[in-house]
Amino acid sequence: MSPLDNLMKHLARLPGLGPRSARRMVLHLLKRREALMLPLIDAMTRAAQDVKACSVCGNLGGVDPCEICRDQGRDRGVICVVEDVADLWALERSHAFRGLYHVLGGTLSALEGVRPADLRIEALLERIKLNEVREVILALNATVEGQATAHYVAERLEPLGVAVSRLAHGLPVGGELDYLDDGTLAAAMQARRKAG
Amino acid sequence: MSPLDNLMKHLARLPGLGPRSARRMVLHLLKRREALMLPLIDAMTRAAQDVKACSVCGNLGGVDPCEICRDQGRDRGVICVVEDVADLWALERSHAFRGLYHVLGGTLSALEGVRPADLRIEALLERIKLNEVREVILALNATVEGQATAHYVAERLEPLGVAVSRLAHGLPVGGELDYLDDGTLAAAMQARRKAG
Repeated sequence: MSPLDNLMKHLARLPGLGPRSARRMVLHLLKRREALMLPLIDAMTRAAQDVKACSVCGNLGGVDPCEICRDQGRDRGVICVVEDVADLWALERSHAFRGLYHVLGGTLSALEGVRPADLRIEALLERIKLNEVREVILALNATVEGQATAHYVAERLEPLGVAVSRLAHGLPVGGELDYLDDGTLAAAMQARRKAG
Repeated sequence: MSPLDNLMKHLARLPGLGPRSARRMVLHLLKRREALMLPLIDAMTRAAQDVKACSVCGNLGGVDPCEICRDQGRDRGVICVVEDVADLWALERSHAFRGLYHVLGGTLSALEGVRPADLRIEALLERIKLNEVREVILALNATVEGQATAHYVAERLEPLGVAVSRLAHGLPVGGELDYLDDGTLAAAMQARRKAG
């Protein structure tokens, strides 16, 4: 296979890319080898070598423990449990949370054979036993798997006597009622709060 | 900057990618370092080193002259002139053409300061003088710049006495009249052919 076809084949495997966008990308890169392609290769090589999972929370970063776990300015009494590193990053971008995280690494799934032992649940229980944790926030996706996993984790947390909370369901900020699915509307109605 | 942020910054510069898709891509790659990320780095490094522009036609490939220019089974009497390598590849995928190509490397543009000397026009004239070329097909984009460039190239070709043709305008195969722009409809009407 030519180096060109080989590169396109590898790029087309990435999420969100198909043969067409991979072709565009390859041409774009080859026309800007010095300015774009070589720096990208360098950045990718460095990331592949240096990025590691945090042994405490499971976040990805250049150092272990990660910068969030090291940050003494954060509230170490609250742990927010997420499925994936992407969810952790989304919460960080929202600036809505200043505690610590715990990445489960997926959700329980009978279909895909993901069992409790495949997720970082024991590590979470250990962290709570060894540290002074007041509250665990289960920030799992509002999917069937996410909610089943949240339910399971909540059960495992019960004997530890730590407060367990979940993210609220409701109307997205800026969202219109008319476009919202029935489940979210019903949840927003049930969880309504006093106005003013 | 952390190796993670650095890689996302570089990826987000690629065409069709923004911060969100770059993040997704980075997580996808880091989770599959051995299976996906290292082979991609390898493919990219090899392409950056080995892919070169064909000194005859301007196509990109692992060899110079390119495989199309080397192919003795192709009709060497017809040269199809395109703006960009992407256009050459599109024509190759269509299997509609079995001659040789010539990549101009862009279009004339007063606005962007692209003058005839910036395109591979002289090289095209030389090729025609030195080889037995019966026909030149101007397969330039149907944009203002593409058509102006086609006009200019046609004028330069005139003294050489070679036949010059252009791609037909018309209804795309599978296309619906209702969705077609007026210009294309008018062109398709003018260039109508006897049915049957």
